[in-house]
Amino acid sequence: MELFYGTLSGEGLMTLDSEEASHCTRVMRHRAGESINVIDGSGTMYVCELLEAGPKGAGAKVLEAVPGFGSHPYRLTMAVCPTKNPDRYEWFAEKVTEIGVDDIAPVIGDRSERRVLKTARLERIVLSAAKQSLKGAVPRVLEPVSVSELLQGAPAEALRLICHCAEGKRVGIAEALEMPGPADKRNIFILIGPEGDFSDKELELAERLGWIPASLGDSRLRTETAAVVAAAAVYLKNPEEPV
Amino acid sequence: MELFYGTLSGEGLMTLDSEEASHCTRVMRHRAGESINVIDGSGTMYVCELLEAGPKGAGAKVLEAVPGFGSHPYRLTMAVCPTKNPDRYEWFAEKVTEIGVDDIAPVIGDRSERRVLKTARLERIVLSAAKQSLKGAVPRVLEPVSVSELLQGAPAEALRLICHCAEGKRVGIAEALEMPGPADKRNIFILIGPEGDFSDKELELAERLGWIPASLGDSRLRTETAAVVAAAAVYLKNPEEPV
Repeated sequence: MELFYGTLSGEGLMTLDSEEASHCTRVMRHRAGESINVIDGSGTMYVCELLEAGPKGAGAKVLEAVPGFGSHPYRLTMAVCPTKNPDRYEWFAEKVTEIGVDDIAPVIGDRSERRVLKTARLERIVLSAAKQSLKGAVPRVLEPVSVSELLQGAPAEALRLICHCAEGKRVGIAEALEMPGPADKRNIFILIGPEGDFSDKELELAERLGWIPASLGDSRLRTETAAVVAAAAVYLKNPEEPV
Repeated sequence: MELFYGTLSGEGLMTLDSEEASHCTRVMRHRAGESINVIDGSGTMYVCELLEAGPKGAGAKVLEAVPGFGSHPYRLTMAVCPTKNPDRYEWFAEKVTEIGVDDIAPVIGDRSERRVLKTARLERIVLSAAKQSLKGAVPRVLEPVSVSELLQGAPAEALRLICHCAEGKRVGIAEALEMPGPADKRNIFILIGPEGDFSDKELELAERLGWIPASLGDSRLRTETAAVVAAAAVYLKNPEEPV
């Protein structure tokens, strides 16, 4: 099965842009009248009939809507500082999309060396990974904010974990994901710092706001590796309900 | 802390090759008499005094040996089919090295598209990752064998998991890692198939030999992603004993 990406209009019509249409008809060789599977990024997969395709795009008629296609039973925000090497951040974005994530939130730490990133490029990578891994919901790539802004902005009722390497008491992530308490364990925020870790100011703010200091174990993981291990920990703790 | 790589001789002398010596003296600017930390890949980290360095290499005197440096409390063999895109396999090798692995075993499946790979290049990547993540033991990159050979060659007393996407009863990997039974849960083999999955013949052989069919959850993961998630599952299940 392959997924295409389109925009849904009110009249049950799905529109593919020229790039997507070209992939659909020239690479995958679909013809008018054939069935194609299309997502619009919102979570639903639409079984469609391809109508017409041309250089400017393609239209398809929605036959059936499959909600929650490839969905996961939790909401996860991965707030991760940009890595010095942009390839590594792109690798992280692709991998957490395959595994299951809702928001990718780049955050700039006091000690971040890299303070800008190419959001549009990340969005393309995330869309491609969502299509390849058959997920109807395409994760959002948020505009970068500071670590402080993210610490303050995450809802207090969510399960909020800050993963750092500094001294101090930390809970293993597997345990943190199961801790009794009022936090909504199905709405998870995980914050991963830059190569130089968080500043004291950021750690104090996190503590004051009730973020749980979590440990990703004893291995010294690169930022992007830590992020993927954390996303895997959430994924492995939350298997789909058996049907 | 940074680690250098050298060869240990019987008289407590550590030798760095010319590339390593150049990195040590020109890039990191160490001088004779200074303390440097060196691994030989066997698991021990040697605190050394840099003696002399020249274009052909450098010598260092071992002052102290720290065994089990950065070690993990299990033995893990990741047997993973080469990916069509070699970059992805290199990412996998780097990431599982950071997380904790002992052997990286490329395996060629009946349905493998890629049947050759650059072992020397992988070894360089793995060594670099071991140094960067401060591990004294450098994982081995084994010569490729067929899936059948690996299925038969893995010791029967090890915990042997085959991760596939075909029909049939599978145990979630977290559960498989904790299953009661005679298998040695500290000697783990995980087998990840190619993009086209294992052939029926391979799956039947695995079953006959007592490999446990394991599931990595509901997400459709690329080969290299599946491998990293599996390694993360082992890592997260096996935190270091508290000191």
